[in-house]
Amino acid sequence: MKPSLAKGTRDFAAADVSRRRYITDIIQQQFQLAGFQPLETPSFENLATLTGKYGEEGDRLIFKILNSGDYAAKADEADWQQRNSQKLTAQISDKALRYDLTVPFARYVAMNHGRLTFPFKRYQIQPVWRADRPQKGRFREFYQCDADIVGSESLWQEVELVQLYLSVFEKLKLSVTIHLNNRKVLTGLALYAGIQDRLTDFTVALDKLDKIGREGVEKELREKSIPEASIEKLAFLFEPQSDSVETLLKLRERFDGIDIGLQGVDELQTVITRCADLGLPTHKLIFNITLARGLDYYTGAIFEVKADGVELGSIGGGGRYDNLTELFGVKNIPGIGISFGLDRIFLAMDELDLFPESLAKTTEYLFANYGEAEAVAAAKLVKRLRDKGISAELYPEAAKLKKQFTYAEKKGIAKIAFVGEDEIKNDTVTIKNLKSGEQETIAVRDFAGTDDQHFCNLR
Amino acid sequence: MKPSLAKGTRDFAAADVSRRRYITDIIQQQFQLAGFQPLETPSFENLATLTGKYGEEGDRLIFKILNSGDYAAKADEADWQQRNSQKLTAQISDKALRYDLTVPFARYVAMNHGRLTFPFKRYQIQPVWRADRPQKGRFREFYQCDADIVGSESLWQEVELVQLYLSVFEKLKLSVTIHLNNRKVLTGLALYAGIQDRLTDFTVALDKLDKIGREGVEKELREKSIPEASIEKLAFLFEPQSDSVETLLKLRERFDGIDIGLQGVDELQTVITRCADLGLPTHKLIFNITLARGLDYYTGAIFEVKADGVELGSIGGGGRYDNLTELFGVKNIPGIGISFGLDRIFLAMDELDLFPESLAKTTEYLFANYGEAEAVAAAKLVKRLRDKGISAELYPEAAKLKKQFTYAEKKGIAKIAFVGEDEIKNDTVTIKNLKSGEQETIAVRDFAGTDDQHFCNLR
Repeated sequence: MKPSLAKGTRDFAAADVSRRRYITDIIQQQFQLAGFQPLETPSFENLATLTGKYGEEGDRLIFKILNSGDYAAKADEADWQQRNSQKLTAQISDKALRYDLTVPFARYVAMNHGRLTFPFKRYQIQPVWRADRPQKGRFREFYQCDADIVGSESLWQEVELVQLYLSVFEKLKLSVTIHLNNRKVLTGLALYAGIQDRLTDFTVALDKLDKIGREGVEKELREKSIPEASIEKLAFLFEPQSDSVETLLKLRERFDGIDIGLQGVDELQTVITRCADLGLPTHKLIFNITLARGLDYYTGAIFEVKADGVELGSIGGGGRYDNLTELFGVKNIPGIGISFGLDRIFLAMDELDLFPESLAKTTEYLFANYGEAEAVAAAKLVKRLRDKGISAELYPEAAKLKKQFTYAEKKGIAKIAFVGEDEIKNDTVTIKNLKSGEQETIAVRDFAGTDDQHFCNLR
Repeated sequence: MKPSLAKGTRDFAAADVSRRRYITDIIQQQFQLAGFQPLETPSFENLATLTGKYGEEGDRLIFKILNSGDYAAKADEADWQQRNSQKLTAQISDKALRYDLTVPFARYVAMNHGRLTFPFKRYQIQPVWRADRPQKGRFREFYQCDADIVGSESLWQEVELVQLYLSVFEKLKLSVTIHLNNRKVLTGLALYAGIQDRLTDFTVALDKLDKIGREGVEKELREKSIPEASIEKLAFLFEPQSDSVETLLKLRERFDGIDIGLQGVDELQTVITRCADLGLPTHKLIFNITLARGLDYYTGAIFEVKADGVELGSIGGGGRYDNLTELFGVKNIPGIGISFGLDRIFLAMDELDLFPESLAKTTEYLFANYGEAEAVAAAKLVKRLRDKGISAELYPEAAKLKKQFTYAEKKGIAKIAFVGEDEIKNDTVTIKNLKSGEQETIAVRDFAGTDDQHFCNLR
């Protein structure tokens, strides 16, 4: 049997693990500096917790786990006879893999809200799974890094999350643009165009602007029977935007009498003004009136982050939601959250060559193996070095030196240590630096910082 | 809908995440000091990669993932009519969740052996899933921390892994005993008792000694039709052991003429001698002749670790295997590995109160919110502190001070910072230490280490 990876999944060897940790360590550090606390939820949830939260398409893409035991015996007779896969799923599967980190978080808050201190700031860095068709940069298992704040309607939370995005990407040295919009602006636009009852169709079409362009969006609106007059009224959306402040000013005029739209504009202005007051680089913030992010549950701010100089789509996104825990029977817990897309950030950093050199930690010293007696002496030094926090290995066999050198070179080990007959006699160790070629012989006491100078007494 | 966790799974909130990370950070650090490199494999594998590797019982406990789409349509007609769950599983599921870290590692080595540098030392810290009945300390999702070395038959690897166990548990301050045995000793015993063709039945029964006692083991051997004479010859196994060296000496006599048994004794003695030479605390090592660990694939050394002073079963185990990648068509890659059971280690440390105080990182400063103008000034200081690596938060609303204090107390924040009208006028900040009750007013320049002393110029 020739082994293979499951479709859409990956192994991460040492070099990739180190580079991914470099990113998640920085994200985690910034999360913690901002007072977010870690949460980890299980990889699978009850199926009922996940279904109905991501739309029909989402439900289809959730990985369901087959029940253990004689699952077939418990299925409905008629559904079984008809081989109705769709109806049978919930009968033979009661668990499913996490599809995102937001719904499990909502489930957690709903279960624990009596014990939590609000506003509750949590972060979560875990894999999620989607039965999507794999393609470049899209996998069936991938990591999300989320920060959410629940229990506060203050616009300072919007500022907090913009600040978090900026600080993470500044530390990563990845230049980004943060696109901002507000669901209330989108609702205002629907009212302005007289299509308030078609808000979802409108935002779903608008959301595709990047992919299908103005013509595509207008075509889709027509297909959804949005009146031609409304489409014309919205034409200004597709004109080149001037700067954010001016666009907001013009929008304020159009929203004359449309309260919800004006409220959206006010919120955006407050957030941008406060960011400016704090000295944040506001030139990285763009009010993007066409940003919708498809997700029905956003009620206020909408964020999306794009890396400058690479064509990768969004590397992060989020927004304000008011009713997330309501799905689980707990009302009045407003929230706001952002997500970092680890895989896309990785691709962007790789393409722009932003990873520091030699992140992968390798062994510092390889001790050559000359045979039993020498190996015991060498192993004592290996132990001493490790006790001092220096990584070291003993080559396990008394193989030809060439083979031992090759091992060191392939593993990127810089220094080879020799403890042969002479060294044992003289209580020394010889170190060869493979990069510089330099070689020196050092007294054991100096090398390992031991009290005793003799190998035989070394422990 | 009242939300709940899936059976046998857990949420980890901040305090638990910190304590678990405390353990895994130490494990990871010691792995790296010993030259092990990280590997991460996907959460799910092709079903065929996992089945047949863990025995019949294991196969049953693997979580299978239901195929997407119209899975029922692709199932065999006769099996479907008979509702044969067992036969249908592989037809409606082609993926399954990782059951341990060893088989995915073997799959990785088999797929990449041409590119790896041998001996290849990898470590892996990831969750695994088993459809076991949940009980105290046993969950359906739990973490394993594995270190394996493949491509070397040297007994220095056995020493390396004993050393690794000892160094990790020393750093964790958890007192442990490492039980050692060798598969060749078990084979020797079967030969000695004339039941060499019944080795698996013998080891499976022996493995249960801790749970069912001598009577239980002997009863099971009888049930498996092991001759009474053989059971009598093995009676010495259940007598109280003297020290390891003496037990090995006696065993050497019994194994007179049984080469494989003698080889097992030799190997054990070499490992113990080398550990003594290195000054390792060999009183923590016990030669346990009845240790079998049920796993058929062990061919040499067998390890098991128990925490002293708690009744928890094993908190780690492992052994040498010769043929792991052979299952995937790649021969001659001998290996040896050990595993750390994170959940059990956690339970032991919790019971023995070994976690350092206040591991959970919380925010250092909470800035009180007095309203918009003051909040902007406070937010500037929050930003400065974070830039300096000090965690800080602004309370998001100008709520009553009592409410803001309560938030700080509940979150364990030690210091509240006040930036009110007076502070802004005087360019100062007032800090109250909630533990000591002390309060002081500091110039902004001194507090935030800014060049400028005025709030208005602060960025």
